Amino acid sequence: MNTYYVCALKILFILSFSQANVIKQNADSCQQILGDDVIREIWSYENVKDEILRYVTEGDFKGKTYDELAKFVDKFGARPSGTEVLENSIDYIIDLTRAENINDIVTEELEVPHWTRGEERITMLQPRVKNLAVLGLGRSVSTPPEGITAEVILINDFAQLESSKEEDIRGKIVIYNPVFTTYSDTVAYRTQGATRASAKGAIASLVRSVGPFSIDSPHTGLQTYGENVTQIPTAAITLEDTDLIKRIIDRGEKVILKIEMTSSLDTKISRNTIVDLKGTEKPDSLVIVSGHIDSWDVGQGAMDDGGGLFISWAAPVILKRLNLQPRRTIRSIFWTAEEFAYVGAYDYEKRHLDELQNINFIMESDEGTFAPLGLAVGGNQEARCIIAEILKLFESINATTLIEDDSPGSDIAIITKHGIPGASLYNDNERYFWFHHTEGDTMNVEDERDLDLGTALWTAVAYIVADISFDIPR
Amino acid sequence: MNTYYVCALKILFILSFSQANVIKQNADSCQQILGDDVIREIWSYENVKDEILRYVTEGDFKGKTYDELAKFVDKFGARPSGTEVLENSIDYIIDLTRAENINDIVTEELEVPHWTRGEERITMLQPRVKNLAVLGLGRSVSTPPEGITAEVILINDFAQLESSKEEDIRGKIVIYNPVFTTYSDTVAYRTQGATRASAKGAIASLVRSVGPFSIDSPHTGLQTYGENVTQIPTAAITLEDTDLIKRIIDRGEKVILKIEMTSSLDTKISRNTIVDLKGTEKPDSLVIVSGHIDSWDVGQGAMDDGGGLFISWAAPVILKRLNLQPRRTIRSIFWTAEEFAYVGAYDYEKRHLDELQNINFIMESDEGTFAPLGLAVGGNQEARCIIAEILKLFESINATTLIEDDSPGSDIAIITKHGIPGASLYNDNERYFWFHHTEGDTMNVEDERDLDLGTALWTAVAYIVADISFDIPR
Repeated sequence: MNTYYVCALKILFILSFSQANVIKQNADSCQQILGDDVIREIWSYENVKDEILRYVTEGDFKGKTYDELAKFVDKFGARPSGTEVLENSIDYIIDLTRAENINDIVTEELEVPHWTRGEERITMLQPRVKNLAVLGLGRSVSTPPEGITAEVILINDFAQLESSKEEDIRGKIVIYNPVFTTYSDTVAYRTQGATRASAKGAIASLVRSVGPFSIDSPHTGLQTYGENVTQIPTAAITLEDTDLIKRIIDRGEKVILKIEMTSSLDTKISRNTIVDLKGTEKPDSLVIVSGHIDSWDVGQGAMDDGGGLFISWAAPVILKRLNLQPRRTIRSIFWTAEEFAYVGAYDYEKRHLDELQNINFIMESDEGTFAPLGLAVGGNQEARCIIAEILKLFESINATTLIEDDSPGSDIAIITKHGIPGASLYNDNERYFWFHHTEGDTMNVEDERDLDLGTALWTAVAYIVADISFDIPR
Repeated sequence: MNTYYVCALKILFILSFSQANVIKQNADSCQQILGDDVIREIWSYENVKDEILRYVTEGDFKGKTYDELAKFVDKFGARPSGTEVLENSIDYIIDLTRAENINDIVTEELEVPHWTRGEERITMLQPRVKNLAVLGLGRSVSTPPEGITAEVILINDFAQLESSKEEDIRGKIVIYNPVFTTYSDTVAYRTQGATRASAKGAIASLVRSVGPFSIDSPHTGLQTYGENVTQIPTAAITLEDTDLIKRIIDRGEKVILKIEMTSSLDTKISRNTIVDLKGTEKPDSLVIVSGHIDSWDVGQGAMDDGGGLFISWAAPVILKRLNLQPRRTIRSIFWTAEEFAYVGAYDYEKRHLDELQNINFIMESDEGTFAPLGLAVGGNQEARCIIAEILKLFESINATTLIEDDSPGSDIAIITKHGIPGASLYNDNERYFWFHHTEGDTMNVEDERDLDLGTALWTAVAYIVADISFDIPR
């Protein structure tokens, strides 16, 4: 045994010891916070959890989440806000729910943006002619009919933009080339890029697609024009083309692009869909599971957010089938127009403002339904301890991890900001942003077994929280 | 220590012991075959190998393969057979070589196919309207101007096609949906699919793209019409769309597609390019390194085969710069029209038939230039033992592996079938078929360090084989 080896062993020992200590301290403090009675009550649900898990992974529901999701997205494809196909898909999922003898369903109408992509083409004219893969960003205006032809200036970050001289930006096409760190950080170049470039005099702006990997894959998504700026056309291009343009410019050559884009924007009526499985003892107290039914206009919206939609659809269906009616009401919400900045969720907030405090716990899955690992939970320490203890029941499927997240989910952030505890599905979604808002968001991303496990976890957690004797503290 | 653990240890021990034995036997037999003198002579090249490795990975050549490849593919983009851009790229690489004071360059003209992709569109009309991503296959004929509209029949393999009743195929669009096993097996559905479907009366054929992973990525490639069949239009569609159509058909629904494709086919003159670094003692004896300069008409042809082209371009350049002139001639060949079935290589074979036996060893890199692992070697046991011993010199870069391959490379198979020993670059190309023949074959697939290592290995092996006192046995 050489010295290096001894040393490495020592370091490993110290590391594992100190890590074990942290975990133990957290566990100790949760044990103290919860007390033996609460922990015992949580563990009393082990049999119910097993029943749900068996039914979903081995019983009649095995493969059903995948199958129903596939039928749905194959039938409708993409379901953009404001379209007839979205409304038809809402009717379909309502019928699917009624077929399960769940009839406590209401829809709430609201006005949603209806942005329609027309023809889009970007051609590099200099230093050579090349077509670029492109997806215009949501709410982008059209170019003039003759297109926009201009030189490119490449901008790495907003600091560089702000410190640029206005004469270097004026009349140019800005291409943002940010390093992809996290989605929430990098997406600012997509959402605010056009407005900030326009303020400096740019006549169009493009953004390196917000994702870490590409096979010539542009990623669309929403952008919002600020007030008092000229609304300039804006689109996403691929990692590959952005890097190509960067290399060309770095060699001292000029890049000239021609952008031709058409689009239209108006508003339509859509609906949030609310499915209730009424509670036996506290029907006014709600445990909400949810996903959004709209998608971008590319791919099938299978991952974003078909998977989240269908595990949330499945929860009351499974409980109904198993005759497991909890004390509180399980409410499943299928949000509309999430992709246009939580339009459905804001409407729900406004409409139900007086009753928001009746929400005991709110869940949303909108970051993929890959293999479930646990939950990302927002709320106070006691709430997190309760959920952490519940997650211990899911050791057999390796879904015991609680991640602290002060604003889990997407739509439900509009609700949790009122101090209501909530959670999103924490899952093995490393490749989520490979497919997000691309033509590649299809059933090929989904896995039958992973969906079953997600459905089982989602349903069982919702049931336990809805049935347990105490409310989730806030 | 429990019983299971003891048992597992025993199994591991037995496995590692027997594996070690096999390796030792091979090594023993190579040692016996080669003899001490040969082994000693091979190891006498260790300093030269170090010099080349240092120069390429730390010295003036560091990053140069990547940079020159990037400049080349950024300037020309895709370089399809028969196009002016391909001929311009040949002129460019000749100039680049002359700039290195290497002037022993000849080009050999030959007739090549010039197939041009026009407009391509596939629309699913039933059960709903959806556009499919498409890439027509090389040599495909056009559809009639009004397109081809017909029902789809899905075929998993040729056995199923052959056993199908002709009335089930006649008038239909065949979609091949083979399981991707290896490229060489699965590609038959691309190359022969149209002919075999046509023979059964199909009016068009499509193939699930030949690759294991996709982000809505169609993969083009060559297909060849057989004699005495109607030439029907043929194209590749994505894994996602093939799976979608399969699910729809499996549900008992009918799929109707409309295919609109235009293309043209004629012949043009292109050139093989031959760069010689003349040997000091045996100038007629050749050690050939090679890659092909043409590419498909999508992406940049950076991976297929820009990387192989540039590590082969680099070999004589580096030896010239380092003043390392071997006994035999190092010949670098940039094959043309590989993508239309080795047209350049066949011309070389025909033109040099009388001198083929002067080729001592021939190498080609055409399966990616990811991190090099060693070489795939064709030839007799003694030839393989020599190369295996040479590869031992590359332990510091983990490129010591010899894979036995009776037909390494692509173009060079036309030469090695004459009994000439040869090798291709064995590299960490697990993702090669993610990008192969797609718009995603760009510089983003390439890595600077991996290209340096590939260049160093390629150059040093070529030098040693060209300089060593004995010929590679055959």
